[in-house]
Amino acid sequence: MNFKDIKAIVFDFDGVFTDNRVIVSEDGKESVICNRSDGIGIEMLCNLDIPMIIISTETNPIVLFRAKKLKLSVQHGVENKLQELEKFSNAVNIDLKKIAYVGNDINDIECMKVVGYSIAVADAFEEIIKNSSFILNKKGGEGAVREFCELVYQSYQHD
Amino acid sequence: MNFKDIKAIVFDFDGVFTDNRVIVSEDGKESVICNRSDGIGIEMLCNLDIPMIIISTETNPIVLFRAKKLKLSVQHGVENKLQELEKFSNAVNIDLKKIAYVGNDINDIECMKVVGYSIAVADAFEEIIKNSSFILNKKGGEGAVREFCELVYQSYQHD
Amino acid sequence: MNFKDIKAIVFDFDGVFTDNRVIVSEDGKESVICNRSDGIGIEMLCNLDIPMIIISTETNPIVLFRAKKLKLSVQHGVENKLQELEKFSNAVNIDLKKIAYVGNDINDIECMKVVGYSIAVADAFEEIIKNSSFILNKKGGEGAVREFCELVYQSYQHD
Amino acid sequence: MNFKDIKAIVFDFDGVFTDNRVIVSEDGKESVICNRSDGIGIEMLCNLDIPMIIISTETNPIVLFRAKKLKLSVQHGVENKLQELEKFSNAVNIDLKKIAYVGNDINDIECMKVVGYSIAVADAFEEIIKNSSFILNKKGGEGAVREFCELVYQSYQHD
Repeated sequence: MNFKDIKAIVFDFDGVFTDNRVIVSEDGKESVICNRSDGIGIEMLCNLDIPMIIISTETNPIVLFRAKKLKLSVQHGVENKLQELEKFSNAVNIDLKKIAYVGNDINDIECMKVVGYSIAVADAFEEIIKNSSFILNKKGGEGAVREFCELVYQSYQHD
Repeated sequence: MNFKDIKAIVFDFDGVFTDNRVIVSEDGKESVICNRSDGIGIEMLCNLDIPMIIISTETNPIVLFRAKKLKLSVQHGVENKLQELEKFSNAVNIDLKKIAYVGNDINDIECMKVVGYSIAVADAFEEIIKNSSFILNKKGGEGAVREFCELVYQSYQHD
Repeated sequence: MNFKDIKAIVFDFDGVFTDNRVIVSEDGKESVICNRSDGIGIEMLCNLDIPMIIISTETNPIVLFRAKKLKLSVQHGVENKLQELEKFSNAVNIDLKKIAYVGNDINDIECMKVVGYSIAVADAFEEIIKNSSFILNKKGGEGAVREFCELVYQSYQHD
Repeated sequence: MNFKDIKAIVFDFDGVFTDNRVIVSEDGKESVICNRSDGIGIEMLCNLDIPMIIISTETNPIVLFRAKKLKLSVQHGVENKLQELEKFSNAVNIDLKKIAYVGNDINDIECMKVVGYSIAVADAFEEIIKNSSFILNKKGGEGAVREFCELVYQSYQHD
């Protein structure tokens, strides 16, 4: 895959930045488990000025906090991911065929079918694996985002 | 197993929706680790109008919070699970032989002996495995609920 | 090993009831990860009226909360574990040779050398493994306590 | 490697004392997962009066809390790790060639290139592994610090 042709990136959150688990406390609060290594990967791509966004169906401030820390744009509580993807494509004025979408579960399928680069984490659901153009070696929350960022970064360096 | 004959489902909580671990904080609060992927599975079956309930012996608001998020009925702090199972069977007017029970530990054994479909998560205790009519590939908290929901959902589609 | 000759049990906490990890939050609070399955094991032995105690060097309310939930006696913040073990032996009037000690790390070594039954969790440190009379199949926090309780319980049943 | 020639130690935090994961809660608080076994290792070296410090790029009170518990010096929110390392070297009056640096990710690379002993945790990034003079068997947060401390401690005993 020609990673250097990727001009913008859309990330799902749960199962991509996390291992898809959710910690539920007895006072009803949720937490998720992210990976510090992803932050260094995101930083690499920020330096290349590649537009990136997290799109999540969950309505949850967790996504906002994590996105803020990583200095990423974010939309959460998104019922129609495809519509949000198209909105992003228009906003940054980059064709869907030049956008990469990184996902893991069936609610990512519509988006992955329309973008030029559909990327699955190693532990994505079967239907996502089948519909992806590239499968990462790392699982969600275990460095999948870092791995992907490095692949893009390195291809830009060889450009 | 003929999953399409399952007309109602009873889930144990700890060890089924969770990996059976409990996080204990120094201010005495408990948390458990669930899996976002289970939510998508439960949603599939909600759309098929299959009555479902979580029955847990633990008296813990965690179960209530998780059940609410998944839009599932729930009984927690249940001393006699068998009695609660029978109450549910009567309430939804579905015979025990058409009910599936998903469990993992010895306090599920009585229920699993009376229902038509006794389902064990992959890491269930030996006695539960022995008394189950079906063993899932996934462990509790690692997608066992999702796997089971998909099996039921797919059998309904082929109906 | 003749588990039915065990008349009292002393447990270390971290690395036995937990996987030896500690979660540290940004407001300085600690949490540990226990296993619900251990609770059912402890309950079995409570029914046999076997005196049990948790002895921990950590000064931490977590141990107190977990012990309370499991209805176990507990001493935390213990600098001299051997002394505390002897105090327990006197209090319950059971000879050290009839006491089992379950441990995982080098601060358990003195106690394990004097009791009749020195039990190591599967992931105990080498020096503990070497000095143990029995090694459990399960790791700390992953069911080691449950496994040990079942071994004792079953030997009492065959008595 | 001659561990007994190590006269001072600098530790990275995330990925060394932790498994590099970060728990993010819905009220925006972070937590990390450390290992109790590391504490016993640090204590061994404290008894040998080996100067030690944690240097972290993260601006986070978590590092402070963990360092305090382990009775370690700490600098967090460090933008230039190399500069901080040199400051430490001067403060303790020990040459960089006699200092060990334990790291895991690319922001440790500059420091690892100048010290006499560059130590990588088992799951360090490839570039770190390549630039290390010694690779630990244990992963960060899973006992890497303990393993390293024991190696140093034992070499001092044989001195």
